[in-house]
Amino acid sequence: MKILVINCGSSSLKYQVIDMATKNAIGKGLVERIGLAGSVLTHRTKSGAKEVITAEIPDHTVAIKLVLEALVSPHYGTIEDLKEICGVGHRVVHGGEKFSKSVLIDDPVMEALEECVELAPLHNPPNIAGIKACQTMMPGVPQVAVFDTAFHQTMQPKSYIYGLPYEYYQTYGIRKYGFHGTSHKYVSQRAAVLLQRPLSELKLISCHLGNGASICAIRGGKSIETSMGFTPLDGLMMGTRSGALDPAIVTYIMNKENLTVDQMNDFLNKKCGALGVSGISSDFRDIEVAAAQGNARAQLALDIFEHDVRQFIGSYAAVLGGVDGIIFTAGVGENSASMREGICNNLEYIGVDLDIEKNKVRSEEVDVSKPNARCRVLIIPTNEELMIALETNDLIR
Amino acid sequence: MKILVINCGSSSLKYQVIDMATKNAIGKGLVERIGLAGSVLTHRTKSGAKEVITAEIPDHTVAIKLVLEALVSPHYGTIEDLKEICGVGHRVVHGGEKFSKSVLIDDPVMEALEECVELAPLHNPPNIAGIKACQTMMPGVPQVAVFDTAFHQTMQPKSYIYGLPYEYYQTYGIRKYGFHGTSHKYVSQRAAVLLQRPLSELKLISCHLGNGASICAIRGGKSIETSMGFTPLDGLMMGTRSGALDPAIVTYIMNKENLTVDQMNDFLNKKCGALGVSGISSDFRDIEVAAAQGNARAQLALDIFEHDVRQFIGSYAAVLGGVDGIIFTAGVGENSASMREGICNNLEYIGVDLDIEKNKVRSEEVDVSKPNARCRVLIIPTNEELMIALETNDLIR
Repeated sequence: MKILVINCGSSSLKYQVIDMATKNAIGKGLVERIGLAGSVLTHRTKSGAKEVITAEIPDHTVAIKLVLEALVSPHYGTIEDLKEICGVGHRVVHGGEKFSKSVLIDDPVMEALEECVELAPLHNPPNIAGIKACQTMMPGVPQVAVFDTAFHQTMQPKSYIYGLPYEYYQTYGIRKYGFHGTSHKYVSQRAAVLLQRPLSELKLISCHLGNGASICAIRGGKSIETSMGFTPLDGLMMGTRSGALDPAIVTYIMNKENLTVDQMNDFLNKKCGALGVSGISSDFRDIEVAAAQGNARAQLALDIFEHDVRQFIGSYAAVLGGVDGIIFTAGVGENSASMREGICNNLEYIGVDLDIEKNKVRSEEVDVSKPNARCRVLIIPTNEELMIALETNDLIR
Repeated sequence: MKILVINCGSSSLKYQVIDMATKNAIGKGLVERIGLAGSVLTHRTKSGAKEVITAEIPDHTVAIKLVLEALVSPHYGTIEDLKEICGVGHRVVHGGEKFSKSVLIDDPVMEALEECVELAPLHNPPNIAGIKACQTMMPGVPQVAVFDTAFHQTMQPKSYIYGLPYEYYQTYGIRKYGFHGTSHKYVSQRAAVLLQRPLSELKLISCHLGNGASICAIRGGKSIETSMGFTPLDGLMMGTRSGALDPAIVTYIMNKENLTVDQMNDFLNKKCGALGVSGISSDFRDIEVAAAQGNARAQLALDIFEHDVRQFIGSYAAVLGGVDGIIFTAGVGENSASMREGICNNLEYIGVDLDIEKNKVRSEEVDVSKPNARCRVLIIPTNEELMIALETNDLIR
């Protein structure tokens, strides 16, 4: 039983083949510069060997064709026959309010996906293109859509309605959707395993801290609050994104700098966040290096991020009425021991008691709390591809 | 020892004369429609008797002149001679980074106030007009400026710098300033008295919940975090204000509705918040009535506000590392027992244990916790006028 997982961006395509017997990726790769000069497919075998294939790749259909050829290549392929692939799981960014869980794709689903394009004009079209390409190249193989937003559809109106005229929700669909749902769901399920307690009775706070970052309050396995909102710009300050703001700042800057709506959006998404504060990089690793060398603005960017995350943890502790476990995942969450340590400072009042030595690890699934800590601190490497494969597997059986 | 307290809006002027021996207001009133047709001064004596004076009031100087005449009126005045007034305390909304405490007003201070106009173009000009009017009408009487922002100048950069390019702070002064500082300071000082503990060792969360609303984390008497930001639009959803938003919502709505920057600002400040969600009123009393009658959107507005406040309390508990007391003040905070009860739900994990019966009071200075609650819940009616008078008194002695 093997599942192909596909994650399409506007000019890129990431894929993995996962063997459901072992839950391991037996081949994966990345197509870059789709529709641009210099397209390239980089394929990695299970052993980690790398094969670089340059070709003209004008669209996602050609990209999928090359991926499928690579998968069965007698030289570096990972499977013998495409028939081994029982299903394809597609990451879809935005499912709006139409999808509260993963779905087998059929014509009505495709129509509904098209209707969600308005909410994610940059992300959903390539996702749809990837699905169509797979439908063309792999006729008869079931396709499944797994949404970044679906996990958060359990939020109540008090959590997802903004302080705006209610008509803006009804007319434009302006509400909190939340993202990173596949990751938050995956790590919360792993947390229950690690804590050896039923997910249904756990109060968890999941911190997905990467270049994009979001936090989620999870009660009994259900998302009840999350920091990203109408778009992935909301919530925490991130690598290049501002996070939530005093909305008067948006109009103030537009006015001062004579920016159009599109320019302002671009600015808020690409020039702000840790990059803007530090003036150095959007990559927290670069910022940590600069801060260690005494760069004050780099240190400030780290301090703000740490302070932001701690505040969201506190906020979600209040939403949950206490916390059993705090989960750190994604690039910064899995790898930065110092950031985790900083965030956990001052959280003794909710039962956090970090073991500083245990915490000095990278990307290991481990509980880094002291034995008697009431609130456990967990590092859980996220695996969105595996989660997508698991959901796909459930739906095609 | 009597102090005159002045709070000037663009077309209004509120005043109180406070007797520092008793800390009581011995006369107060309101001038409305300054510069408009139908100007009127409503004066109240210590006994509560009301005197309405209609007159042409083209500017704040004429308003002050009438106020001073009213104060010494043989029929309804509160003092015999203007010489009894030892100082005038002026509420000034925005002190920027120039003022971290109240100041005696001299020429350099007036210049600095003018420089802050850019940050509060609607609020600071009438404040300045009021000061100039008093300087003209009461020559030789010391004037003091008391700022809404000053109390929050103790925040650290990680609290006040937004996730924007740092240059926007340097060039435009875009940072979190915080407001309601005079109120947060006053109630935190009263909390220490009520709890019979030194303010210097208390961790307090002050919830100023009125039509405008903000929350403040206060450690050892100093503001370390607050919810209003660059402007009073940030933070909580309020009566007509949106509160903090996904900034992409601002550009999305501007685009959809073809709004200019000024129109969008107006919209966010006047058409949003509880008014927008409920579709009924910006006044929480009206909304509570409608919700009790089964109006679902009114109930939703209350739920969002309660949820917002609870989240900020949780967030600030994390900033403080635990909480000794939560203070409720201002219109909703002092008067709505049901809102206080709702907010305190789920906060047992930080030691809150509300006495539901004790909580059924309005505008009384009282601890409404059960005897053994680790985190005390206090109702403390705010008194910004008294705080301004106290600060003025300190500076003129």
